[in-house]
Amino acid sequence: MSLLVTGSIGIDTVETPAGRRDEVIGGSAIYFSYAASFFSPVRLVGVVGEDCPKSFFNVFSDREVDTTGLETRKGSKTFRWHGSYVKDLNEAVTVEVDLNVLAERAPKIPQNFVDSKYVFLANTHPILQQELLGLLKSPKLVVADTMNLWITTERPELLKLLKKIDGLVLNDGEARLLTEKKNLIEAAREVLNLGPKFVVIKKGEHGCVMCSQRDTFVLPAFPADRVIDPTGAGDSFAGGMMGYLATQGNCSSATIKRALAFGTVVASYTISDFSLSGLQQTTRDHIDDRWHEYKQAMSF
Amino acid sequence: MSLLVTGSIGIDTVETPAGRRDEVIGGSAIYFSYAASFFSPVRLVGVVGEDCPKSFFNVFSDREVDTTGLETRKGSKTFRWHGSYVKDLNEAVTVEVDLNVLAERAPKIPQNFVDSKYVFLANTHPILQQELLGLLKSPKLVVADTMNLWITTERPELLKLLKKIDGLVLNDGEARLLTEKKNLIEAAREVLNLGPKFVVIKKGEHGCVMCSQRDTFVLPAFPADRVIDPTGAGDSFAGGMMGYLATQGNCSSATIKRALAFGTVVASYTISDFSLSGLQQTTRDHIDDRWHEYKQAMSF
Repeated sequence: MSLLVTGSIGIDTVETPAGRRDEVIGGSAIYFSYAASFFSPVRLVGVVGEDCPKSFFNVFSDREVDTTGLETRKGSKTFRWHGSYVKDLNEAVTVEVDLNVLAERAPKIPQNFVDSKYVFLANTHPILQQELLGLLKSPKLVVADTMNLWITTERPELLKLLKKIDGLVLNDGEARLLTEKKNLIEAAREVLNLGPKFVVIKKGEHGCVMCSQRDTFVLPAFPADRVIDPTGAGDSFAGGMMGYLATQGNCSSATIKRALAFGTVVASYTISDFSLSGLQQTTRDHIDDRWHEYKQAMSF
Repeated sequence: MSLLVTGSIGIDTVETPAGRRDEVIGGSAIYFSYAASFFSPVRLVGVVGEDCPKSFFNVFSDREVDTTGLETRKGSKTFRWHGSYVKDLNEAVTVEVDLNVLAERAPKIPQNFVDSKYVFLANTHPILQQELLGLLKSPKLVVADTMNLWITTERPELLKLLKKIDGLVLNDGEARLLTEKKNLIEAAREVLNLGPKFVVIKKGEHGCVMCSQRDTFVLPAFPADRVIDPTGAGDSFAGGMMGYLATQGNCSSATIKRALAFGTVVASYTISDFSLSGLQQTTRDHIDDRWHEYKQAMSF
């Protein structure tokens, strides 16, 4: 079924122990879309400035990613991020960030996208997330991401958003900040009290935890021996998860579990190379093979 | 089959966010023995000083732990450790440590223990570990633990030990220090080059990784919402693992995997209360139930 994502599109400069890439394509909506497209057609909504190289979007030329919702705004500049993982592959240090067009009004959702059933609201201001959500007719499953900044500065709006979504995806530090619980299982249960039916807490190289009223589910990360650039791992994880869910037509616990495993596997390709290169080098067949390998690596 | 453990026995003082306990029973061999005794009879070899309360060992009165190898050395004092987890439940800060009798000669292995088939050499000086191992007739499976101190100061002796054992259990920081590999999967494979047939890297609240030539296996920790005192979690994990292995008569990958899952579950009881109290409150039936719950929590 139709899967829509709204989120950032960026020009990234990334340094890792393996090297450096200047001005490559990045942003939450980009990683999400590419990752999800292994499973389901994707409708991408986002905005860039006039400075964004058109060639960036060639990456989607052979993917089922509908870029009708991609706005190139005149007089604006594209979001830029320069990050470094040189000290610690598990935590990016932001060297420089320019919100640029992301600090302006949200992009529009094209009329032919408003019937989207599966929706991922990647991290942005919770007021924008609510506005975008309000434009959709009758979504079946809405999942959002958020970040420290909004938890700290826009808590009332974030709490309003949480009452309107089905699932929340966030990382361990964010979950602790949001709930003031140190223990992640406690934190996850506290998030459920705030509205979502399920919550997924991402722990980077340590995998993830999912909690719903009925279930608690834990997954290690895929045991990767090649980590080149972790940028976009969390968004690729969400993309793999939502892409798979969009093909299933139900959100049972069992389906969500399989979806998280697909998200984990897709993210393992993302981190194996810079920018989108890791994802570009894989196929759905490889993903399925690795999914089985992963299942095997923890079955007992 | 017969399972022997040699390791420390201590008088612990522990502070955690949940409170403080003064002069309670602790030490690697104690946690290991109690945890392993849910699965298999255990032969405990260790040494304490004259100051060690005899009542300490009442904890084993209804367990199949043979304390024949427990030496109370005249004129010596028991190993003491005072640790605090007040700042971070995942990392103990040592407030005070007195090696005392642990800095003296090793305890003897009783004659009726030398035929032991399963052996766990808990963390101590690698020369002592080799000596103790040399006293055993024909062990079937020998697994050792180690620590930063020996990796740094006794590397040649540790490397000799590694050539004589079947399995090594160590934590993530120790694995990185030993192999100079940051990536844990690379570190694990490097350990295999040093001798052991398998290596288990413990990641605390993030579970563990096992590598053998054939397999890579990852397990998250049991999703615990009650963590009172993490002391002894790693030793209980090893105890549960070895206790289960000792009942199986083979060390296939599948058996080791199930053993690691039992170790994980047993450790989840250890951390649920101070000192041995968490283990004392459980039973093999509870462990089996939680093992199935754990399996369920990550099956997809």
